[in-house]
Amino acid sequence: MTYGEPTDHTYARAGLGASFRRGARPAIVVVDLSNGFTDPEHPLGADLTDVVSATAALVEAGRPAGVPVVYTTVAYTPADLGSVVWLQKAPGLAALPAGSPAIEIDARLPRTDADHVVTKKGASAFFGTGLAALLAGLRVDTVLVCGATTSGCVRATVVDALQSGFPVLVPRECVGDRAGGPHEASLFDIQAKYGDVVDLTEAIEYLKGL
Amino acid sequence: MTYGEPTDHTYARAGLGASFRRGARPAIVVVDLSNGFTDPEHPLGADLTDVVSATAALVEAGRPAGVPVVYTTVAYTPADLGSVVWLQKAPGLAALPAGSPAIEIDARLPRTDADHVVTKKGASAFFGTGLAALLAGLRVDTVLVCGATTSGCVRATVVDALQSGFPVLVPRECVGDRAGGPHEASLFDIQAKYGDVVDLTEAIEYLKGL
Amino acid sequence: MTYGEPTDHTYARAGLGASFRRGARPAIVVVDLSNGFTDPEHPLGADLTDVVSATAALVEAGRPAGVPVVYTTVAYTPADLGSVVWLQKAPGLAALPAGSPAIEIDARLPRTDADHVVTKKGASAFFGTGLAALLAGLRVDTVLVCGATTSGCVRATVVDALQSGFPVLVPRECVGDRAGGPHEASLFDIQAKYGDVVDLTEAIEYLKGL
Amino acid sequence: MTYGEPTDHTYARAGLGASFRRGARPAIVVVDLSNGFTDPEHPLGADLTDVVSATAALVEAGRPAGVPVVYTTVAYTPADLGSVVWLQKAPGLAALPAGSPAIEIDARLPRTDADHVVTKKGASAFFGTGLAALLAGLRVDTVLVCGATTSGCVRATVVDALQSGFPVLVPRECVGDRAGGPHEASLFDIQAKYGDVVDLTEAIEYLKGL
Repeated sequence: MTYGEPTDHTYARAGLGASFRRGARPAIVVVDLSNGFTDPEHPLGADLTDVVSATAALVEAGRPAGVPVVYTTVAYTPADLGSVVWLQKAPGLAALPAGSPAIEIDARLPRTDADHVVTKKGASAFFGTGLAALLAGLRVDTVLVCGATTSGCVRATVVDALQSGFPVLVPRECVGDRAGGPHEASLFDIQAKYGDVVDLTEAIEYLKGL
Repeated sequence: MTYGEPTDHTYARAGLGASFRRGARPAIVVVDLSNGFTDPEHPLGADLTDVVSATAALVEAGRPAGVPVVYTTVAYTPADLGSVVWLQKAPGLAALPAGSPAIEIDARLPRTDADHVVTKKGASAFFGTGLAALLAGLRVDTVLVCGATTSGCVRATVVDALQSGFPVLVPRECVGDRAGGPHEASLFDIQAKYGDVVDLTEAIEYLKGL
Repeated sequence: MTYGEPTDHTYARAGLGASFRRGARPAIVVVDLSNGFTDPEHPLGADLTDVVSATAALVEAGRPAGVPVVYTTVAYTPADLGSVVWLQKAPGLAALPAGSPAIEIDARLPRTDADHVVTKKGASAFFGTGLAALLAGLRVDTVLVCGATTSGCVRATVVDALQSGFPVLVPRECVGDRAGGPHEASLFDIQAKYGDVVDLTEAIEYLKGL
Repeated sequence: MTYGEPTDHTYARAGLGASFRRGARPAIVVVDLSNGFTDPEHPLGADLTDVVSATAALVEAGRPAGVPVVYTTVAYTPADLGSVVWLQKAPGLAALPAGSPAIEIDARLPRTDADHVVTKKGASAFFGTGLAALLAGLRVDTVLVCGATTSGCVRATVVDALQSGFPVLVPRECVGDRAGGPHEASLFDIQAKYGDVVDLTEAIEYLKGL
């Protein structure tokens, strides 16, 4: 097919890219900032130092208001290796064995016993997990999504958070990827269709104003 | 963050982009080729004539082997307008009222009473629908995804088909979008992480060989 | 196995049967009060006149506070007949064809365009439907379940409402069944494990006090 | 309401209680035979020695044909105590802390590294878990459900297995409960509506004949 019109005109005509009403009870979902993704020496990893720092700042900004925090991690058991279909397409994910240091949440992030940890086997933090029920049970009305990778598990989580009934904010500095092209392309799609991509300062102000 | 390595090196190191084993019981999921998306005069629409033709050819190629076909459509009732959160971000979707011609499957597609129709309110054909149970109940082992838009409902459906336990094929000619950049970026991500992007001829040969 | 202790002692020891905190934003879910279930002449039906009346009173009691109402109905298309596994076990359900009067909500119930209707193919109103996302999107914090049958779709819906993160109330007069034994046994289990079984008057007072 | 007809007549008229076609690729799901439920000294426990023995025999009967086995366990983290709504209704479930002996699978059961373990926070083994995707990914076509309690997590799992697209068998000797009344009432409902309740010998013959 050919595209006869600039993309911004097309999207405006389609009625995309509006903004959400932000609620009074947000939660922060930190996607896959485990060592396997944040250690550049790990095959799946990248240098996500800035993303980890920005996410830590966001989490701390929400503490005074008691904003719930959910950390996710991907982990596979020996039994998973023969049954999880994603491992056929992305065999590198087998480098995230359950119980190994690779699946532990990066220790630079502020984590307490009151924070939730969701272990998952797919891209979305919602798929095959209790996350939607957890957020509903906490009476959450807005979800801030951080983590890695922007074009992978972050994007899939953003789509599912929205589909699950929650307005979504993505603080730009809090998400990262292995490569620049997919990162930017997914931020564009998210802003157009699924979540409000905002600056970290705006997100922190929102949390501090609760 | 900065990216010090070409993307293809990074992805090879991460173990992405392998291929699926293809099964003996595929199904075809045709995403949102309703008039609202295929009529270029509709605000949400684009000229998807080539996509519709290619999808029709794929569906016909599967008929002799009895390959199940599932068509999806997005539709909103008056009650949805105040409750579906996606409509805050993408208010243009309100132009798909339940019962209107915009939500009918494009009549150029070959559809029979034996085909399934899934009505959805989100991006993914799996979210909030019985599609995963339907495919499991049909003992499907591979899913071919067609339709629109590549960067929207097609991609979300691909991710969920994979997460639901099914290898995914995306025949390149059978998917389309409103704009070229998001279309190509999503095909890149799908091939790297979620599904095998193949030529239509390859997909047709696969179905004819069943 | 043998049971050496009265059931109430066993359940008290197990820490079952406590009560929920009731929220400020309840919703009413009316399960399968369609003609197929409320018409005693229909093979699947029973005389549920009292259940319909009690449910109508509950719905009306919630109107001043704008309590959302969701009606569910079971319906099968021709394509479903060969794919829905439940129809193997309960072939009588095929007497609920999509588009027929049997699947219409009983006209004695007060229904408006602002009410939601969820069409389902399974027992639970949540399974394969967007109900959990709808309730989360409406910021609901408590679910009242009415309808039929107590031992079938009502019970399955109660279990899923709870699992989805919502405290559950079941007004006793608002649920009914084809047979007395299963009705009473399910009310016992619900009260012990899944929902607060209350009198209609108590439920109406709760709604009027919002 | 009054019930003017014997239950068996009513159910025959409604077209309930038929039998499933059994498939060639069954899986066994063993629900919550963790120490917390099988140790009669534990507040939630009962003497399930016979159920454990029968389940062990079933699992062993499936080994030659490579029948997949999934064990489930319920476990709560400190963070769950303030967020899982089920704990309001059944506070006794808090006696299942993550990492404690109570949540370990009963050591009398034959378990290998190839078996799957699903940790859950709700009644159904499918809710908020990857079980449906796991079974679909394994191309399973029949599910045998064992475990405890019949009126609780077993029944909820049976309903969801069916809704997820799988015929269900419940070997009578492989399920147990804390109390006799709820156990029998749930077996009656399961046989009528959701699964084939069979003798253990029949189930073992089925697995040996694969």
